[in-house]
Amino acid sequence: MPTPEPAAARAEVVAQDPPLYRDPTAPLATRVADLLSRMTLREKVGQLNQRMYGWDAYRRTPDGGYELTDALRAETDRFEGLGALYGLMRADAWSGVDHTNGPGAHDSAALAELVQRHVVERSRLGIPALFVEEVPHGHMALDGTVLPVNLAVGATWDPALYERAAAHAAAELRARGGHVALVSALDIARDPRWGRTEECFGEDPHLAARLTEALVRGMQGTPADYFAPDKAPVVLKHFAGQGATVGGRNSAESELGWRELREIHLPAARAGTRAGAAAVMAAYNEVDGLPCAGNRALLTELLREEWGFEGLVMADGLAVDRLARITGDKLSAGALALNSGVDLSLWDEGFTHLEEAVERGIVQEAVLDAAVGRVLNLKFRLGLFERPYRTSELPSCEHGRALSADLARAAVTLLRNRGLVLPVPPTVSRIAVLGPQAATTAHQSGDYTAPQRPGTGSTVLEGLRRLAPAGTDIRYARGCALTGDDLSGVPEAVAAAAASDLAVLVLGGSSARTPETDFAANGAAIGAVSHMTCGEGADLAGLGLGRAQHALMDAVVATGTPTAVVLIQGRPHVVPDSAHALLTAWYPGPWGGDAIAEVLLGLAEPRGRLPVSVPRSVGQLPVHYNHKDTEYGGYVDESAEPLFGFGEGLTYTGFEYGAPRTDGRRVTVDVTNTGSRHGRSVVQVYLRRLVTDVWPRTLELCAFEGVELAPGETRTVTLRLDVELAGTRGAEIRVAGSSRAALTAVPLPLPVRA
Amino acid sequence: MPTPEPAAARAEVVAQDPPLYRDPTAPLATRVADLLSRMTLREKVGQLNQRMYGWDAYRRTPDGGYELTDALRAETDRFEGLGALYGLMRADAWSGVDHTNGPGAHDSAALAELVQRHVVERSRLGIPALFVEEVPHGHMALDGTVLPVNLAVGATWDPALYERAAAHAAAELRARGGHVALVSALDIARDPRWGRTEECFGEDPHLAARLTEALVRGMQGTPADYFAPDKAPVVLKHFAGQGATVGGRNSAESELGWRELREIHLPAARAGTRAGAAAVMAAYNEVDGLPCAGNRALLTELLREEWGFEGLVMADGLAVDRLARITGDKLSAGALALNSGVDLSLWDEGFTHLEEAVERGIVQEAVLDAAVGRVLNLKFRLGLFERPYRTSELPSCEHGRALSADLARAAVTLLRNRGLVLPVPPTVSRIAVLGPQAATTAHQSGDYTAPQRPGTGSTVLEGLRRLAPAGTDIRYARGCALTGDDLSGVPEAVAAAAASDLAVLVLGGSSARTPETDFAANGAAIGAVSHMTCGEGADLAGLGLGRAQHALMDAVVATGTPTAVVLIQGRPHVVPDSAHALLTAWYPGPWGGDAIAEVLLGLAEPRGRLPVSVPRSVGQLPVHYNHKDTEYGGYVDESAEPLFGFGEGLTYTGFEYGAPRTDGRRVTVDVTNTGSRHGRSVVQVYLRRLVTDVWPRTLELCAFEGVELAPGETRTVTLRLDVELAGTRGAEIRVAGSSRAALTAVPLPLPVRA
Repeated sequence: MPTPEPAAARAEVVAQDPPLYRDPTAPLATRVADLLSRMTLREKVGQLNQRMYGWDAYRRTPDGGYELTDALRAETDRFEGLGALYGLMRADAWSGVDHTNGPGAHDSAALAELVQRHVVERSRLGIPALFVEEVPHGHMALDGTVLPVNLAVGATWDPALYERAAAHAAAELRARGGHVALVSALDIARDPRWGRTEECFGEDPHLAARLTEALVRGMQGTPADYFAPDKAPVVLKHFAGQGATVGGRNSAESELGWRELREIHLPAARAGTRAGAAAVMAAYNEVDGLPCAGNRALLTELLREEWGFEGLVMADGLAVDRLARITGDKLSAGALALNSGVDLSLWDEGFTHLEEAVERGIVQEAVLDAAVGRVLNLKFRLGLFERPYRTSELPSCEHGRALSADLARAAVTLLRNRGLVLPVPPTVSRIAVLGPQAATTAHQSGDYTAPQRPGTGSTVLEGLRRLAPAGTDIRYARGCALTGDDLSGVPEAVAAAAASDLAVLVLGGSSARTPETDFAANGAAIGAVSHMTCGEGADLAGLGLGRAQHALMDAVVATGTPTAVVLIQGRPHVVPDSAHALLTAWYPGPWGGDAIAEVLLGLAEPRGRLPVSVPRSVGQLPVHYNHKDTEYGGYVDESAEPLFGFGEGLTYTGFEYGAPRTDGRRVTVDVTNTGSRHGRSVVQVYLRRLVTDVWPRTLELCAFEGVELAPGETRTVTLRLDVELAGTRGAEIRVAGSSRAALTAVPLPLPVRA
Repeated sequence: MPTPEPAAARAEVVAQDPPLYRDPTAPLATRVADLLSRMTLREKVGQLNQRMYGWDAYRRTPDGGYELTDALRAETDRFEGLGALYGLMRADAWSGVDHTNGPGAHDSAALAELVQRHVVERSRLGIPALFVEEVPHGHMALDGTVLPVNLAVGATWDPALYERAAAHAAAELRARGGHVALVSALDIARDPRWGRTEECFGEDPHLAARLTEALVRGMQGTPADYFAPDKAPVVLKHFAGQGATVGGRNSAESELGWRELREIHLPAARAGTRAGAAAVMAAYNEVDGLPCAGNRALLTELLREEWGFEGLVMADGLAVDRLARITGDKLSAGALALNSGVDLSLWDEGFTHLEEAVERGIVQEAVLDAAVGRVLNLKFRLGLFERPYRTSELPSCEHGRALSADLARAAVTLLRNRGLVLPVPPTVSRIAVLGPQAATTAHQSGDYTAPQRPGTGSTVLEGLRRLAPAGTDIRYARGCALTGDDLSGVPEAVAAAAASDLAVLVLGGSSARTPETDFAANGAAIGAVSHMTCGEGADLAGLGLGRAQHALMDAVVATGTPTAVVLIQGRPHVVPDSAHALLTAWYPGPWGGDAIAEVLLGLAEPRGRLPVSVPRSVGQLPVHYNHKDTEYGGYVDESAEPLFGFGEGLTYTGFEYGAPRTDGRRVTVDVTNTGSRHGRSVVQVYLRRLVTDVWPRTLELCAFEGVELAPGETRTVTLRLDVELAGTRGAEIRVAGSSRAALTAVPLPLPVRA
């Protein structure tokens, strides 16, 4: 190792001869080129590495401050700088970071500055590090505002609301010294067995595309060159096709072809990159025989050459090293990834050998330079060279909490309401609140959630107690745990139900990790730990709830007391059709309990619509509304149709749709609230291709908009169509409140083609 | 319609001036070209059509002969000839043909001649028709010898035996006046929910390729130009990827990409066309967005241009007309199919409009001529111009029956044998033979089976009664039906089991169609009819047996009497792991009862090996041994591994494998029978790719051979490797008696590449 130059000497050099790259008035490309021209090969390679777990970079000192670890110093010495640092503020069971040892809202910025100063001073050219943080549904750090998971966001069908929440998350991140947000957005939920279904906006490419655009706008704003100080560049993950791995098995192969990939799995990425996303993350799974991180056809030919994407490609954790399975060693794995189009690695060894790869001629320095240029470009765009330590003001946590609660409320989806047992009528004076999810927030927030301070959030029981009319007798019994066979609590729950006018039975799954969880090197859970049935690494072959939950449900329903089942879950589970009412809140976040109680009581209207089809059984998978329009008639022993369809969701009022009109670019329809309560209908426009070059899908969502209407009110809604019509020579559109509602078709005028 | 010339006048013209195409010494291509040059457009179009159901062409006369129908006359008039006639001898519930009204072994040839004379005489140029028959597992005609279904053939791992059986089937077909055999061969079983799983040789491309070659050799022989009179050109079905439709739903979309298609679904077709297959059938399903019948990339670019296939492409029934869903009408559907590479249609309207399509310029006459040339070429190769009415001698039906029984015996696969309850020991003097499959042959033969004469075949009960040691007390109780909940017969079965030393419980599914079955226009069953749980159109969302069968099994096992469960089935079902012994015979054909009894009693050794993985549950699908070598660790609630693996099958003896040796082209291994009985081990050679261009599979079968060994005998087996190694720079091979046996790896020397 060369002896590092003293920092003072370097600062002096900079002062004597301010280089072009330090001139903020120079064009970005000039700044990048100038800096690149001054760098050694080793320094360049350093920019492409993101080796450390951020929580290994610091240690709490007895006085409550932080000090840097030898690990950070060694890593910074190794390449005379640091390209990026992952998860400096990450807190969870895997990292072991919690309120006793990790940075909270008010000391993160100081920690970030401590690390950054070391990096800048250790770098000959004063290149700051990127601080890359997990922000899949809020910043995954202590005190970060937790939002509902993406599947719940998908259920809101409300990009504008999500955009505001995303903006808040970005502001929190930047205020704490973080720079870059890793956000789930691109995975499409095609198999509910997959534990990461919760991270998807749903099964539909258009819905996902609209929400991805909202995410990018919310987090990044619309920067020309430089990001605003409260805005964060995003890494959209995962690119591409990760929702289509066989058997719902995490990071397994996907067999799908390019056409299926383009039609279903790529539109969100296309929309996100068009909206200006700074980066995408290359996924673990393979596409057409090659893992995404080693897939040049995907990362270079499609993403860069066809789409013109100029941002950064980051690999998923250890995805580069995994390529050694086919290249034979990690050095050539790194070369394959770089040559395929990966710019920035995560935790891999492979990219640390790029210097040797260049020397051996298996990587051209020009290819490496292009990757380094993209990393540097992002650092310039963040203003890190001008203000490496600056943070913006921490936004109000009350504001964040309100946004999270708004999303939760908008996500609650009413699927069944037999006998109109909901909203809870005034005649109900005794409510039994039952089930393993009823009185705990522990499982409301999904995977990738930092530990919460005690008292954060609300349970369904708390929500009902707080919001039910005074004098309502609310009794609680847990009944059983989320998993396992222990039925000892069932009799108490049955007694409570029998003695009540209404039973609210809160069931579901959990992606909550505990310190007992075993983790793989990339943080995915290994095997089943107590209650964990969902999340990364927790795939499910059956789609039922825990056995005791089914027994509890049967027993409660058998009392004859009207029962509303509420599901708190990260995927659609298969639940018997026995309860009077059924709602799903997905993972609604910490304040989900209040949101659910408001909907149950009629203080809020049910606004959610299904972003995924709910199957009848695991045996009928795959179920999607947008399957190809083939003639199959279902199974001998079961329908091939889902139990609840995409876009469905009941309200406490009723809506009527007029005949749609279209000029080929816009669709106009009159919507009337025909019921006696305020409510929101989600106007859904579906395309049906008739004369085409390739086999079409039954329906394709191509526009949607939520409309709030007072009783009796009619509103004329005009929606802009977003459809790719190349190769389509005849089509019609259908407009309704769900994919399965009775649909009136009108021909879609198509542009005349030469 | 033009007035037809009198036949006598035409015959005279031919006699005066024998044209070149009638000269059998002229080269085939010359004959084809000469004939083509003499044909009108209408006559050409007629050659590409195969509109009629063959059973609509004739009617039995009161004297037991046959007469032609007006439908045949009209069809022959329409194009002044007849290209091909489908299913003249087909007999089944759909066609309504049975022993009261259809042609049997001894009057089919006369019927064929009657039809052919009409066609030849109605054709200005005397062009005979092709008689195309279903021969998926034996000729699907009255008195045709029924062979076990392909899945059972796959279980034999015995291409040589299958080749002999295929030769017999072809000889039967030609003896009865049929010409062309439609044979299932190319579908790969990737989802056991699919009702046509029984028509697949299994999940593995190499096993399917070897058996497809055997099929082609057996049926066609190795003709240079002209087929021998007892040989039949084959139409291999289905091309391509039909085993990969989503959800196991018949003819639904497949999402798979070209690479997956090439690695798994195309090798059997490649092997079959290399072996000289005369034709392939374009499948219903789509590949990469287009149904195979409209998929030029598949039928022309790959099949003809890349592979150099010069044979015929026939479309599946009504598959051309289905293309009207995207083209807008059947005329353009026909044009799309022809332009994509279909030569001969089946039942469609679309191809009847090809004359207009040529006139409108959407089909070029040269493309049409090429298709017609392929049809004519096949007619020439069959010698139909020289001897349009000739048939070969009917082969011995005893020989056919022996071959069918040999295949059945070789297919019986022993999966579990706890406590070595099998073979039935001498101490057993009372056997209870139970279950809905025990005493009937009705469900032993699978789909595509003609009605059998009473008394044909043997049941398990009959086999045991005939073959068990004298004095064995064999009692029978049905217990329950294949489907439904009726448990009224269970007590009798339980009593019989309790009073016996051994219970043989024969369970399973059925693909038997009855006159009550509803059929789609292409003959697929619609919906569930009584006992039918398998076959074309009978897909299953769950993989369990009928509910009563499970109850029967539980009750019989609960008696404590050692129980051997025998499954007669067209797909792997999920069956609890409770019985002492478990065997599957797949659909073994009419003589399956004897075969099963022989194995149970130890009169034959269990020789079968699984051609498909047997799943633990429908929730873990897909399960194959040859999945990609990814790192997934299974599900939270279930292993991702199958219950029984590909290639597995127990014997009544034991085998040991020595260390394999390889020179890169051959593998040599010593196999020893270490047990005390004669037995057969199937030596299986698996490739494991290490350094590659694309992500490899865990293992790939690349050679196999059955070895019969006496107790204590050792034999040195040498197998030729059949692997495509382009892009592979490091690999090893493993040799064992199943895909999951402990495998010793040896490096595979690879050819040095430039």
